Amino acid sequence: MEREDGVYYGDYLQLDKILNAQEPKSEIEGKAAHDEMLFIIVHQTYELWFKQMKHEMESIVGIMTKPTINENSADIYMVVHRLKRIISIWELSIKQVDVIETMTPLDFLDFRDFLRPASGFQSYQFKILEAMMGLRFKDRHGKEFYKKHLRPEHIDTIAEIEKHPSLIELVNNWLERMPFFNDQYWEDYKRSGDNNGLDHPFWNDYKAAYTNTLLPEEMKNLEGFDLLFFNEDFNAKRRLSPKANRSALFIMLYRDYPLLTLPFQLLDALLEIDELMSTWRTRHISMVSRMIGSRPGTGGSEGASYLKASRDKHFIFNVIADMNSFLIERSRLPELSSSLQSRLGFRS
Amino acid sequence: MEREDGVYYGDYLQLDKILNAQEPKSEIEGKAAHDEMLFIIVHQTYELWFKQMKHEMESIVGIMTKPTINENSADIYMVVHRLKRIISIWELSIKQVDVIETMTPLDFLDFRDFLRPASGFQSYQFKILEAMMGLRFKDRHGKEFYKKHLRPEHIDTIAEIEKHPSLIELVNNWLERMPFFNDQYWEDYKRSGDNNGLDHPFWNDYKAAYTNTLLPEEMKNLEGFDLLFFNEDFNAKRRLSPKANRSALFIMLYRDYPLLTLPFQLLDALLEIDELMSTWRTRHISMVSRMIGSRPGTGGSEGASYLKASRDKHFIFNVIADMNSFLIERSRLPELSSSLQSRLGFRS
Amino acid sequence: MEREDGVYYGDYLQLDKILNAQEPKSEIEGKAAHDEMLFIIVHQTYELWFKQMKHEMESIVGIMTKPTINENSADIYMVVHRLKRIISIWELSIKQVDVIETMTPLDFLDFRDFLRPASGFQSYQFKILEAMMGLRFKDRHGKEFYKKHLRPEHIDTIAEIEKHPSLIELVNNWLERMPFFNDQYWEDYKRSGDNNGLDHPFWNDYKAAYTNTLLPEEMKNLEGFDLLFFNEDFNAKRRLSPKANRSALFIMLYRDYPLLTLPFQLLDALLEIDELMSTWRTRHISMVSRMIGSRPGTGGSEGASYLKASRDKHFIFNVIADMNSFLIERSRLPELSSSLQSRLGFRS
Amino acid sequence: MEREDGVYYGDYLQLDKILNAQEPKSEIEGKAAHDEMLFIIVHQTYELWFKQMKHEMESIVGIMTKPTINENSADIYMVVHRLKRIISIWELSIKQVDVIETMTPLDFLDFRDFLRPASGFQSYQFKILEAMMGLRFKDRHGKEFYKKHLRPEHIDTIAEIEKHPSLIELVNNWLERMPFFNDQYWEDYKRSGDNNGLDHPFWNDYKAAYTNTLLPEEMKNLEGFDLLFFNEDFNAKRRLSPKANRSALFIMLYRDYPLLTLPFQLLDALLEIDELMSTWRTRHISMVSRMIGSRPGTGGSEGASYLKASRDKHFIFNVIADMNSFLIERSRLPELSSSLQSRLGFRS
Repeated sequence: MEREDGVYYGDYLQLDKILNAQEPKSEIEGKAAHDEMLFIIVHQTYELWFKQMKHEMESIVGIMTKPTINENSADIYMVVHRLKRIISIWELSIKQVDVIETMTPLDFLDFRDFLRPASGFQSYQFKILEAMMGLRFKDRHGKEFYKKHLRPEHIDTIAEIEKHPSLIELVNNWLERMPFFNDQYWEDYKRSGDNNGLDHPFWNDYKAAYTNTLLPEEMKNLEGFDLLFFNEDFNAKRRLSPKANRSALFIMLYRDYPLLTLPFQLLDALLEIDELMSTWRTRHISMVSRMIGSRPGTGGSEGASYLKASRDKHFIFNVIADMNSFLIERSRLPELSSSLQSRLGFRS
Repeated sequence: MEREDGVYYGDYLQLDKILNAQEPKSEIEGKAAHDEMLFIIVHQTYELWFKQMKHEMESIVGIMTKPTINENSADIYMVVHRLKRIISIWELSIKQVDVIETMTPLDFLDFRDFLRPASGFQSYQFKILEAMMGLRFKDRHGKEFYKKHLRPEHIDTIAEIEKHPSLIELVNNWLERMPFFNDQYWEDYKRSGDNNGLDHPFWNDYKAAYTNTLLPEEMKNLEGFDLLFFNEDFNAKRRLSPKANRSALFIMLYRDYPLLTLPFQLLDALLEIDELMSTWRTRHISMVSRMIGSRPGTGGSEGASYLKASRDKHFIFNVIADMNSFLIERSRLPELSSSLQSRLGFRS
Repeated sequence: MEREDGVYYGDYLQLDKILNAQEPKSEIEGKAAHDEMLFIIVHQTYELWFKQMKHEMESIVGIMTKPTINENSADIYMVVHRLKRIISIWELSIKQVDVIETMTPLDFLDFRDFLRPASGFQSYQFKILEAMMGLRFKDRHGKEFYKKHLRPEHIDTIAEIEKHPSLIELVNNWLERMPFFNDQYWEDYKRSGDNNGLDHPFWNDYKAAYTNTLLPEEMKNLEGFDLLFFNEDFNAKRRLSPKANRSALFIMLYRDYPLLTLPFQLLDALLEIDELMSTWRTRHISMVSRMIGSRPGTGGSEGASYLKASRDKHFIFNVIADMNSFLIERSRLPELSSSLQSRLGFRS
Repeated sequence: MEREDGVYYGDYLQLDKILNAQEPKSEIEGKAAHDEMLFIIVHQTYELWFKQMKHEMESIVGIMTKPTINENSADIYMVVHRLKRIISIWELSIKQVDVIETMTPLDFLDFRDFLRPASGFQSYQFKILEAMMGLRFKDRHGKEFYKKHLRPEHIDTIAEIEKHPSLIELVNNWLERMPFFNDQYWEDYKRSGDNNGLDHPFWNDYKAAYTNTLLPEEMKNLEGFDLLFFNEDFNAKRRLSPKANRSALFIMLYRDYPLLTLPFQLLDALLEIDELMSTWRTRHISMVSRMIGSRPGTGGSEGASYLKASRDKHFIFNVIADMNSFLIERSRLPELSSSLQSRLGFRS
């Protein structure tokens, strides 16, 4: 076997590092516990996947940071493609809980004391990932608990990340930049219509069409409609502006037009990521509860309540789902102006 | 092809019924919506799986209802085997949410109005399943909401089921009957020990061993120990009695003895079912939120909050996980009396 | 509860039919076998999913049958969307094998004899699905075995389906119609280049670029290149013509251009379906082998070899994967003419 | 944050090694390809899981190597428990193919040339795992191909492993040692029966009962019965001896007796592992075919055919499935002697 001049699998993957990074504490202490290897390797593979998701997220954030995104470039395609990869990794991460659950509480006890106070809450890569997507320190549950578990340099890294626009902010900006309602393509529609203060006659027509779909007991939804799509104050603390909300709704409604196909897939992928992270947190909670009951976890007694709170509060993209309350059937949609229709299609 | 004298696949499966039970309302109304077929078939397959789980649960409840369960029969093996099948069906049911999520909100709107007020909340089979496992009407969230969605005959059926012992009650009885601490096999251990009011000297020893494992800040766990394992009042409204809790803990601790292998698998399977149902409810919540946002579901506006409450409250077997707070390492376990050890093993 | 005027869940789903279509033969014969219910319900849910996939496939074939597909309509989007649903259903179908595998061989024996000679090979819906995608009777393994298990009316139905274009044929036609190389948009490129008999100067350039990527031992691939993309005889019995192959390769290479995003997703989805069906057949083979060993299945002794042959031969869309041997890196791709580039993008 | 005296998560997991072991060749060469990170991390996580499975397998082999396995110890329980963990890891490994499949062929081409001739075929850990389970060098497909891809020291390691008993051999020995048919417990049954050369009267009775279940066209199965269970020559090159086969069949038939519950789970788990590895190989083949078509893989042109052959030939435990051809219904089983029945149960 001659591979002097070529790449060797084990060298390329640096298996000398990867496969020599497991030193069970229980062995060092002379009380070898068989299952500690599983504990180590499960966490190491999670960290590798976190690194991979960070890698994808950096590239996504990089693309979305461009001042304009040319729809004739591969930009949005790449964003969608890499979000789908993140989705695939989250699905795997959820499945991976099955493997750690093959460890019983009693098996865990055999080495648990050697680990104190190490805890998964100390995974700064996961925190970085959350921050890149848009979870802000100020919106986090248990800020002190959170800080207590991170090294100062990691807290600084995360603070630094927060200074740059996160994915949800970049999505907001991208949605705001969509030129559907502020350019010449709507001229014919605009001239004929009445906007009733709703920014553009299209929205006046849409609100009327939406109203027609409501049951009597749903009429209060109209208030929500005005708040979400036209009230700056209401959205001030939300992650998407009224303008961005309108673009998002428009994309959802007219996603059959070629120009909106990928934007729709992008919004849908973000919702999917939120859902998968929620499922992962749910599995995590159940796993911890089965493993240690109500005893303090390796992360201390606040751990379990932190996990539950993070499942219930640490959503990032679910603001996009809010638009779903205000959709109407295709057959009732206002017809677009012919100039806009043409703009949403291919040149050919 | 001659099969006059034999069974034919399509007849055996009654495919004439199964495959002719889809009549989309949107077609009847002359506004055919492509995705209504998916909506119907997803729900029909769920109902078929509910029927299957009921079938398994009936057999499990039947076995557990026997006044005594002979450990030299296949009884406990069968219970565990069929619980594992239920687990497998729940895993499939969770995966099935992926399929319904290929329907977008806009596609759902095309036929949603035709369905009112039908709703998944009207699935009485699922309610029956919950009742068989031990969810009582009085412990349910939103009792009025619950009743409103069921036909009187189904409410009656469920009430009837509640009159019979549920699985959690039968598990309690089975655990209470375990003869570990009330017969002659402990004579030698008993005579030498002191029970300090803990029913049996074993528990006195165990509590001492457990105390030794506690960190200073965990000392309050001792209170929990006494409540869970020795306080009738504390457990009066809980589903397992102190005696049953003690047996469950004992099984978890000494599950390596052959006689306890299957009982341990049984307890573990119940926890797994609780966890899977919780994951399924979480997926259900996310799916509904993506599909209809905050508009009233086909089940009315209370639907979403009912789903969330049921995810947070409708646990049945998680009382078993409470024992996990009170485990200790194998190396610290009190040694069993030799007569008991022999009793926990095979005759050979 | 008043729902006289509305739709009721159980009625809408026709649960009276669905839930009353299970009559275990072992019960009728007075030797009730617990697991026969599982056997029935697993097969009924499969048949429901086959119906759903047929429903999707009919709509896909309907769209693809149009003489021209307007890229500014939702047509290709819908085809891709529904193929992805079929993918999701296949993923579920594979997972469903886990459920049937909770039945042990001994449990199956308890009712197996009552079923003879019924067999899953008698599922005509699955055969119809294969035929709609493009599996022809003449390409099937074990034609006599196949016929023996179907009722005459089902054989006729499938023969009838074969008279209409299948999905693979429609995909071929759609690829052939792609106007990339036969219209005015390439004028500038054409005039300057030399086609060397490769239909268009682009291919001459591409072949040169491809040649540059080959290792010495790969040079024989050039022969394959000429056969696959330019030899009518070689492709005469294959499902895609040279022209269609060229279009497919072009789509794979330039999929970053907006006009080609959905066509690429379409080709990729077809490959995914082939892969999933192969995985499903593999699981099916293993399951049967675990269940009945080498004894004749309910479908007779030829069943097992039929299953293996169908896994190895009944691919439909893997001809698309053949193109993968002839890709080159993006950086080496011939640059498209500016008129074509513009044609592949949005108008805006 | 003070953790001077305790364990820190990142140190414990040696994240400095784990997260600094990714150096994409394409970056080093100045032509950074985004997807190379995924390629590296997917393979590194696989290697971590291989290490984990080796860890489990070592412990399993260690237990099974004991000259006698006390059924009143936790031995068999532990073997089954750890086999189930291996099953869970294989299920995850199959799911992980989904993640690598998010890389398209074109994305792979961007860095593929930098990797030559590295190849997954150089994973010696996987080869070690196969060898520990019982795949022998002499039974491997493509021995030269196999050797060419391994470093001499790894070939030596694997040769060394082959000198020790593999899992399948240890399972054979354990089955052979089962004392069901060679001790005093069958005295009463023996005395009354006739063995007709079938080693023990039980088998004579069983063969008669089996014969009664056969259809006329299945009568040739009797030959297989004699070969598998009583012919030393026939089994000489097979991995299980006739005696072991008889024990395996006996376990399958009477698994409802407590003593046989865990042995049955053990045999079933081995079959499950074979099936999962076969599914993983199938997914691997499809993935490679989609990624590089018929071009030589990074492992050279023999790679694809090696993969297919390994899927079809590298089964280890499927000899256990052979027993499934010779099961009969519970109701027809010969009744065991009362002394044996008692021996198969608990003492209590």
